[in-house]
Amino acid sequence: MKKTLAVLLAALCLTAQTPTRPIAGFTADSAAREIALEAKFDQGLKRENFQQWLKRLSSKPHHVGSPGSKAVADFIAAQFREWGYETQIETFYPLFPTPKTRLLEMVAPTRFTAKIEEPPVAGDETSAIKDGNLPVYHAYSTDGDVTADLVYVNYGLPDDYRKLREMGIDVRGKIVLARYGASWRGIKPKVAAENGAAGCLIYSDPQDDGYVQGDVYPQGPYRPAQGAQRGSVMDMPVYPGDPLTPFQAATDPNRKPDPKQAPTVTKIPVMPISYGDAEPLLRALTGPVAPASWRGGLPLTYHVGPGPAKVRLKLEFDWKLAPTYNVVAKMKGAEKPDQWVLRGNHHDGWNFGAADPLSGMISVMEEARMIGELAKGGWRPARTLVFLAWDGEEPALLGSTEWGELHAKELQEHAVAYVNSDGTSRGFLRVGGAASLELFTSQTARDMLDPQTRVPVLDRLAAARKVTGGEGEFRIAPLGSGSDYTVFQHHLGIPSLNIGFGGEGNGGSYHSNYDSYDHYVRFADPDFQYVMATAQLGGRMMLRLANADWLPLRAEGTSLAVRGWMNEVIKLTDDLRGQTRRQNELIRSGALRLAADPRKTYIVPEPEAEVPFLNFAPLQNAVARLEQAATAASKVDPAKLDAPRRAAWEESLRAAEQRFLRTGGLPRRPWFRHVLQAPGFYTGYGVKTLPGIREAIEQRLWPEATEQIGFTAEALTAYAEWLEKAVERTR
Amino acid sequence: MKKTLAVLLAALCLTAQTPTRPIAGFTADSAAREIALEAKFDQGLKRENFQQWLKRLSSKPHHVGSPGSKAVADFIAAQFREWGYETQIETFYPLFPTPKTRLLEMVAPTRFTAKIEEPPVAGDETSAIKDGNLPVYHAYSTDGDVTADLVYVNYGLPDDYRKLREMGIDVRGKIVLARYGASWRGIKPKVAAENGAAGCLIYSDPQDDGYVQGDVYPQGPYRPAQGAQRGSVMDMPVYPGDPLTPFQAATDPNRKPDPKQAPTVTKIPVMPISYGDAEPLLRALTGPVAPASWRGGLPLTYHVGPGPAKVRLKLEFDWKLAPTYNVVAKMKGAEKPDQWVLRGNHHDGWNFGAADPLSGMISVMEEARMIGELAKGGWRPARTLVFLAWDGEEPALLGSTEWGELHAKELQEHAVAYVNSDGTSRGFLRVGGAASLELFTSQTARDMLDPQTRVPVLDRLAAARKVTGGEGEFRIAPLGSGSDYTVFQHHLGIPSLNIGFGGEGNGGSYHSNYDSYDHYVRFADPDFQYVMATAQLGGRMMLRLANADWLPLRAEGTSLAVRGWMNEVIKLTDDLRGQTRRQNELIRSGALRLAADPRKTYIVPEPEAEVPFLNFAPLQNAVARLEQAATAASKVDPAKLDAPRRAAWEESLRAAEQRFLRTGGLPRRPWFRHVLQAPGFYTGYGVKTLPGIREAIEQRLWPEATEQIGFTAEALTAYAEWLEKAVERTR
Repeated sequence: MKKTLAVLLAALCLTAQTPTRPIAGFTADSAAREIALEAKFDQGLKRENFQQWLKRLSSKPHHVGSPGSKAVADFIAAQFREWGYETQIETFYPLFPTPKTRLLEMVAPTRFTAKIEEPPVAGDETSAIKDGNLPVYHAYSTDGDVTADLVYVNYGLPDDYRKLREMGIDVRGKIVLARYGASWRGIKPKVAAENGAAGCLIYSDPQDDGYVQGDVYPQGPYRPAQGAQRGSVMDMPVYPGDPLTPFQAATDPNRKPDPKQAPTVTKIPVMPISYGDAEPLLRALTGPVAPASWRGGLPLTYHVGPGPAKVRLKLEFDWKLAPTYNVVAKMKGAEKPDQWVLRGNHHDGWNFGAADPLSGMISVMEEARMIGELAKGGWRPARTLVFLAWDGEEPALLGSTEWGELHAKELQEHAVAYVNSDGTSRGFLRVGGAASLELFTSQTARDMLDPQTRVPVLDRLAAARKVTGGEGEFRIAPLGSGSDYTVFQHHLGIPSLNIGFGGEGNGGSYHSNYDSYDHYVRFADPDFQYVMATAQLGGRMMLRLANADWLPLRAEGTSLAVRGWMNEVIKLTDDLRGQTRRQNELIRSGALRLAADPRKTYIVPEPEAEVPFLNFAPLQNAVARLEQAATAASKVDPAKLDAPRRAAWEESLRAAEQRFLRTGGLPRRPWFRHVLQAPGFYTGYGVKTLPGIREAIEQRLWPEATEQIGFTAEALTAYAEWLEKAVERTR
Repeated sequence: MKKTLAVLLAALCLTAQTPTRPIAGFTADSAAREIALEAKFDQGLKRENFQQWLKRLSSKPHHVGSPGSKAVADFIAAQFREWGYETQIETFYPLFPTPKTRLLEMVAPTRFTAKIEEPPVAGDETSAIKDGNLPVYHAYSTDGDVTADLVYVNYGLPDDYRKLREMGIDVRGKIVLARYGASWRGIKPKVAAENGAAGCLIYSDPQDDGYVQGDVYPQGPYRPAQGAQRGSVMDMPVYPGDPLTPFQAATDPNRKPDPKQAPTVTKIPVMPISYGDAEPLLRALTGPVAPASWRGGLPLTYHVGPGPAKVRLKLEFDWKLAPTYNVVAKMKGAEKPDQWVLRGNHHDGWNFGAADPLSGMISVMEEARMIGELAKGGWRPARTLVFLAWDGEEPALLGSTEWGELHAKELQEHAVAYVNSDGTSRGFLRVGGAASLELFTSQTARDMLDPQTRVPVLDRLAAARKVTGGEGEFRIAPLGSGSDYTVFQHHLGIPSLNIGFGGEGNGGSYHSNYDSYDHYVRFADPDFQYVMATAQLGGRMMLRLANADWLPLRAEGTSLAVRGWMNEVIKLTDDLRGQTRRQNELIRSGALRLAADPRKTYIVPEPEAEVPFLNFAPLQNAVARLEQAATAASKVDPAKLDAPRRAAWEESLRAAEQRFLRTGGLPRRPWFRHVLQAPGFYTGYGVKTLPGIREAIEQRLWPEATEQIGFTAEALTAYAEWLEKAVERTR
């Protein structure tokens, strides 16, 4: 009862806009002014803009390289100019393949030709548009024409192939059929190729986002039988962006592109299919029944094969450079113009892209419009604001990566933070980012209301976390990949955030033709409440970062997170040691063989080498020093510093996180330079923290693990030293 | 490597039949003789008998009351006589309903009439037999004719109705559609009626034993679209057997039965259906999408309803007394004729009943035949052997229950142990029973080889347990219900075992017309290897119990198990206290409300009363005394006792477990009298240990829990005292 009252009171305080609580980076007086400004900002936001912009921008296909994309970029640029921003379109020319031939046939034991088409749907206006429409395909699949027996490989991850080997199934020369899920899609053809497969199909099982989850489109939001998920399969955990120009911007439109020179293009042909197309293939497989956890939602017995289903997969692509239009809109800071606050969202979609990316893009536009309004009313940001509308995110984060590579030096010299969004929908706050921005984020979510429950966004999230068994306290998730923050966070060391809402607007339109205006307004966020919430959140973040008396970056957030990650990798090693011993004992004692069904093929795996004890001392010493430095930094009160000292302190904080970048980067992927986090080499979007160490352990590369402990400790120590010196200079 | 060698050596020792290890109850010399006898027993077993008997006995429907059942009983009795047993058929006349009318129609929004028929299947000879065939139905459903909206209730257990209440769904007056699984079927109509439903349907979801698990019959062993699971829905956790004569034997064939007088008949009509019949009903439901864990394997979105699917369920039964033929075959003991060793299996099936029960029945027959052979060769058992072939197990354990009730007094005075089997198939040893027989069981399994891997059965089981993460040491599972040991173990306090093999012969023929000879020999145990293993196991147990110098009952097994169960109920209380506090906090803080999707109906549950601390001291003191008494008993060496003292000691051990029976029985079910275990009031077959205490806690009946702690402690103390006195008398 007491808590309910507290929540109620909090809500009352908020609606009355009483600045009862401190804001990181602000003096008490500044905080009061800031709260008043944010109230004004909120009041000026217009819901009708969302409806108009979403309808307009999603009316035609607007993938990178299409006339639609150019039109969208031009429209957004014109708007930004109208709102008072110095606006330009920066164009790049990365490699972007589109399909010329797509053929999937079953040639035995019966004949079947896959449709690989998404038919029009009643009540979905754009689903009938053919003009300029990108068909169902995987971008950066290699060309190929292969005919082979089919094998069902579950999610197509390394553990799945391990299981197949135990079942006596060899995928070499076969075409594998994997289902979407459990990793980013690009991992599946990569692992298939590593295992010797000749081709790869990826289908959307109805258990994933079809009828098992809910009614299918147009009755409900989920994926219909012929709906398929387009997407990139480039090996982005190695590097994103133009596959021909890693580390460099793709500025030359006149290059002759050769996809053979692109290491991130897949080694084998790969194509996405619907469950309508997958069902006849799965039905035609015999061989062992798939393990229980491999079975999906189709009404059949999932068999592994290989064969007798034999399929032909033929793919040919048009390998061209695509003009990639980034809109860059600046509002110069009045006091600290050399400190840049960045806010971005991509504008390209696979086709109509209403949810992904436009729901986020229109939030950013409305934020920019209203900040323009405030500026027209006489307010000026202290720091420079830069709004960014990226092109070519879908294929490979093309626009943001090339731009980041081109402007690397000035970004590292000026950028304070990058705040990204992408699709947003009804539900709960979802934020990933640099741990140094954890307090900043939680305070922002504390100071705005959830539109459905009218309690602070932070409180609703805390309630959900408690209900699912977690702790109530806000923790920011570390960033993997999957949107345009990648170059900023992982390559340039700029503290980044990825913000949005979700969880209650789920469906199965992702990367399909049905990601449309009609779908979005029926299911994802019917009255734009959460597009509005995203604008309130993003706008507040921009205003706070623009106006703060000193930057709200907090080393203690980072040190707390790093301590947790270090404990995880130590535990990971110990757990792996225990599991290895246990598994080896089961192998050597014959228990695995005895427990197996003698009527089924079962190849007992070979024992693994024992897991050694690793020397974590360098990491432990570095973390201890980091913690001490962070504690010392937290005791600096910028309010009490004179102007030069405060400026020096602020500049030290701003640039501090670049200390986490290691020249030479991570093993086998030098472009990813951040020692604290990276997208997983075998998970794709999924984050790995302390990735050099963690992935070496996971892959049982013990000398590499020890080396990476050293490298990581060096970077942590460099960061700690940087802080120590900065603290020293405040005295 | 060492272990593999050890296993190999053990196998060599076994095949050489070297008596290297002690056998509980035997002196070293007797053990050597016993091992030699068992080798002779094994050598005489004939595989061809299994094939012939299974074919013959499964050739016609042979459910209780049918001519087929009479023919089976007569055949078995004639065999026993031929093998030298004093054999008789003891007939009882319990109430057994068969269907007159079975109608299930969907009347809205479209019309559909359920087939409720299992069609003939190619390659299954008996599946075309109509004559005498019992159709798909639930025995002891009440008569009824109800038309109402349908609600899908998942497994139909109390937690499912709690979830429905949270979703704002009221099942009062509705017909509920539950899926098989997670409890014994009879629990579903009971809980449905407690929640106010007017009717109940139970279907076999393909996720349970249909195409999700493997290929369906006749391609594979799993349940085809029109296959359905017959079965009893009598409220057997209250009492099994004739519903009109609890505690009494149903010996009067001339009674006029009135099902209204039978408290264990269901309160609402209930019928089983196939997934072929369920699919149109589920497709017609709208309302909320079922929670993720409620969804099955049909290719549709599972909605909860209620409606618009409206169905009519009309059921009428012929309520008659059915003659129930138990075959009782005795071989008198040469030395201790007044100690009876019992071995039983039922002979009635729902129709053809090849797996259930005949696979077990033919094992018992072959055991009896071979023991008859040994007797003809001059060997005699020391104790009296009683082989039992029960009728009427399927509807309600009719034959065994009535027989046990009729012979209660003499059984308690003479029975040493009851060894039950039922269906058996390829795989791993499965034994449930009295913990006092744990060592006896593990030694028996130690001394015979698994037919597929040629290692001791005990070692294969240990391997499987280790692989699934358990400990290797053998632990006997406590008995719930589900077969004919029930009256012996739970009502009469006779140490019982339920033995068999399984886990590798799974399928979906259970209680369907497809439980046939053809199905069994194709899938369950193709060359009767495990029927043979069951005969070797059961035969060894009979020979050991018959010949032991003293009874191998071991109080330390019991005390060890009881200590574990006591720790469980204490932890259960503590866990429930923690969960209750946590849940109440989530309710009172508003977290549950805030975390819920405002667009879906969600009724926040009421807080529960806090879980008090219970006084477990009486139980703890009783368990401590039990342990001391068991330790003292374990130090008695019967080999060193003179004849009268040894006889007295043996008789004390034999009758000791009756001390666990409490006059007045368990709350709301006085027929179940054993304080250590019972079938669960809300799980059916599933066992509850320390059931009086455990179920009071689970149902939050705190005064009852305290009372049951006292009652249980009294029974444990009575057992301990009994042992103490027995030990005293050995001095």
